Amino acid sequence: MKSEFQFIRHIKDKFSLRYTGDDCAVLPKDKDMDLLITADLLMEDVDFRMEWATPVDIGHKSLAVSLSDIAAMGGTPTFAMLTLGVPEHLWNSDFLDEFYSGWHSLAQKYGVELVGGDVSASENLVIDSIVLGEVPANKAILRSGAKAGDAIFVSGTLGAAAGGLKLLESIDGTKKSEDLAGKMIAKQLRPEPQVALGKLLQQLGFITALIDVSDGLSSDLAHICDASGVGAEIDAASLPIERSLVNFFDDAERTELALHGGEDFELLFTVPPKHVDAIDRSNATHIGYITENVGKVEILVDEKKVELTPAGFSHF
Amino acid sequence: MKSEFQFIRHIKDKFSLRYTGDDCAVLPKDKDMDLLITADLLMEDVDFRMEWATPVDIGHKSLAVSLSDIAAMGGTPTFAMLTLGVPEHLWNSDFLDEFYSGWHSLAQKYGVELVGGDVSASENLVIDSIVLGEVPANKAILRSGAKAGDAIFVSGTLGAAAGGLKLLESIDGTKKSEDLAGKMIAKQLRPEPQVALGKLLQQLGFITALIDVSDGLSSDLAHICDASGVGAEIDAASLPIERSLVNFFDDAERTELALHGGEDFELLFTVPPKHVDAIDRSNATHIGYITENVGKVEILVDEKKVELTPAGFSHF
Repeated sequence: MKSEFQFIRHIKDKFSLRYTGDDCAVLPKDKDMDLLITADLLMEDVDFRMEWATPVDIGHKSLAVSLSDIAAMGGTPTFAMLTLGVPEHLWNSDFLDEFYSGWHSLAQKYGVELVGGDVSASENLVIDSIVLGEVPANKAILRSGAKAGDAIFVSGTLGAAAGGLKLLESIDGTKKSEDLAGKMIAKQLRPEPQVALGKLLQQLGFITALIDVSDGLSSDLAHICDASGVGAEIDAASLPIERSLVNFFDDAERTELALHGGEDFELLFTVPPKHVDAIDRSNATHIGYITENVGKVEILVDEKKVELTPAGFSHF
Repeated sequence: MKSEFQFIRHIKDKFSLRYTGDDCAVLPKDKDMDLLITADLLMEDVDFRMEWATPVDIGHKSLAVSLSDIAAMGGTPTFAMLTLGVPEHLWNSDFLDEFYSGWHSLAQKYGVELVGGDVSASENLVIDSIVLGEVPANKAILRSGAKAGDAIFVSGTLGAAAGGLKLLESIDGTKKSEDLAGKMIAKQLRPEPQVALGKLLQQLGFITALIDVSDGLSSDLAHICDASGVGAEIDAASLPIERSLVNFFDDAERTELALHGGEDFELLFTVPPKHVDAIDRSNATHIGYITENVGKVEILVDEKKVELTPAGFSHF
């Protein structure tokens, strides 16, 4: 069965699409700036569950995932639209008011204004989050600029959101935010987009490739390698695995979550060797190098090099 | 129960939204042009049925409804995104290839380029159609400019799409395009957006209000009256009712379809008295006048004036 990534490539090739394939489309705006645009579809029971997430959580996350796409281009978000398919029982409740207030708090934080959208009746809750942004003309950081020898960095920690999801699947939802699991669950339900970091990376001027960790490190690194026509090698020992995971998962599970978990919405980026020292290590970890082994992502585990197969979230 | 229009007004007031309330949001682009953006959600069994519409039809209509929103601002469409929630049985069929080819033929006709979107698994087919466009700066034609005394015009004919829907609901789907019903059914399944007319109206420079007939004439005229703080009076005898309806519907039914049917995607617009003679009557019919009776739409039927209550399509 074809994956969603294969499908997107098929449509892109068939219709000779020039602007697709990155976290956002980059379109001409004016002489100084390019326009960024992204859409993210969130479906009930696929992307969130009403038993786990409050309406405020769902509003927050709907916007956060799209802001993360803008961050992954080095852009600044500006405007947004929300398209909602709403089941009748939610329409006749406070759900939408709470949903919008969660959405709106995050929007205010990043200066994003709601400018439109659509609403329709639906069996299940369906949310399409559309965000516009801008970036200096021709300065958006694409996935496709990584070169052999570049250092690979990732911001923050990995595995928390996926760990949180596993905990939500296994624990009593009512105690979810009161125990050690809280931090991980919060990262799953209310991820924070790395907008400030993305903008900073753009301003540095030397970042060669950038993507957000939404599908999972193994998948997102493979996206960079595919787009750039390179390979990569990372060191398992250097992965910034979220520390709270230690309370719930063993060594092997933690590494799995960090490699394949997804939804951490951290930024993964590549840096030419001569600029590596300019990266602030307080929030970014050097995890490996870009190689000439086109399309191959390898990982060093206990001094053995093995191939890392993308195993992040896939809808199909 | 609140209607979708009440809900949108509530959200608009609550968050002081400046850009919502028209067919598209109008955003600053550059010194010469404004950016238009619109999103339309189409849900299986609410907005289309898989038994009636081919995948090519659904692709066509998804784009057509959004192009109509661009036309309703007097704009030129430029770029588009498609967000799809796809059931697994369609994912594993030719559906998406055919859907995209229907979408793409219409896109090519209007010079629109697909730049992104998203795809997810879903119970039912869900389509969010997002279209960008542009219009000379500060020259988008809003719903809010109608003045008492302005003449009201509508393009094309009314009632065909709603008549087609009624026929689809009642006849054997397999013969649908082979009989007299063909024209109406085609207008329901493959509506043609009035992009060229919208642009022409914008270039005239004197059109005071413009909207597309998507919800139905009675609803869409009420939207103009609400936004403009005016009333309207139309003459039932002057309505350009689609002629093919005569084969299937009686007098009263035809008038109902023309007044409340919706989905004709014709353009409804208002013209100051001194410019009325400049309107080309070959594709636009003068149906009435804007009045000072704020919020009231009246209709002259058999020399009696009665109030016309909006009764177009509403999702809730």
